[in-house]
Amino acid sequence: MDLSTNEIIAYRAIGTIHTPYSDMAPFQANEDDAKGPFILELLPEFETALEDLECFRYVIVLFHMDRATGYNGSNVAHPPSLGGGTVGLFASRSPNRPNPIGLDVARLLRIEGRKIYTSGLSVLDGTPLIDLKPYTKRDSKPDPGDGWKGKVQ
Amino acid sequence: MDLSTNEIIAYRAIGTIHTPYSDMAPFQANEDDAKGPFILELLPEFETALEDLECFRYVIVLFHMDRATGYNGSNVAHPPSLGGGTVGLFASRSPNRPNPIGLDVARLLRIEGRKIYTSGLSVLDGTPLIDLKPYTKRDSKPDPGDGWKGKVQ
Repeated sequence: MDLSTNEIIAYRAIGTIHTPYSDMAPFQANEDDAKGPFILELLPEFETALEDLECFRYVIVLFHMDRATGYNGSNVAHPPSLGGGTVGLFASRSPNRPNPIGLDVARLLRIEGRKIYTSGLSVLDGTPLIDLKPYTKRDSKPDPGDGWKGKVQ
Repeated sequence: MDLSTNEIIAYRAIGTIHTPYSDMAPFQANEDDAKGPFILELLPEFETALEDLECFRYVIVLFHMDRATGYNGSNVAHPPSLGGGTVGLFASRSPNRPNPIGLDVARLLRIEGRKIYTSGLSVLDGTPLIDLKPYTKRDSKPDPGDGWKGKVQ
């Protein structure tokens, strides 16, 4: 791909995410304490693609953060946990990134037809689901570290 | 978002991924044994967005699998590890999915300007990078399980 063309990458929703959050999704909520239900509802044509997914304990949920303010050219983020401090945008999970793709790892509770019930998701109700992947050993790193949590402002 | 409109979600590359793989990316290679270099090269306008990223041990790399065969309406995948067996497409990491978004978790080795050196990535050289996120405790699940690995065909 020739990046100089600034070519558009076109995706489409594969479903919708249902959560209890209509205007504010709690930041980094404890997934097991969150009051749901949290449901990934696939479009009908993808129902059979869910076969065997119930073998996994966790799913990686990718979604399009359609209500993000948007990227305004600023390369800094203001994580709530840093008070007034800032970090580089790609060192954060801020929704206001060039491509507003959200990612959450959720526990898979059960699948009913084309609906997947999960543990808590920091996602607004009605958010378009764009991909769904099984979480495997390769994604599980025992030593993630604390990142910039120790950063002095 | 009204899914019935089948609205296009438009993204753009934020950079390019450099790997030694021009036509076949090894499947689930041991990231530390892989011979690189593996480099995420950001577009110039995003260089300052990398600030503080070096505090993290791992990065989540999201990329557009531009050379995937594409989704042809089939909801099954043929993971190499299953021989001739099949699983549901969303229970796999097959590139031939409705939205060909690839995801890899890589060790962050060092950052030089707008280039991020990482451990092995199962990514073809020249693949467009679409997002980059820090890997945090929330992404680290100690009990991923074996998924469909015990599945009898």
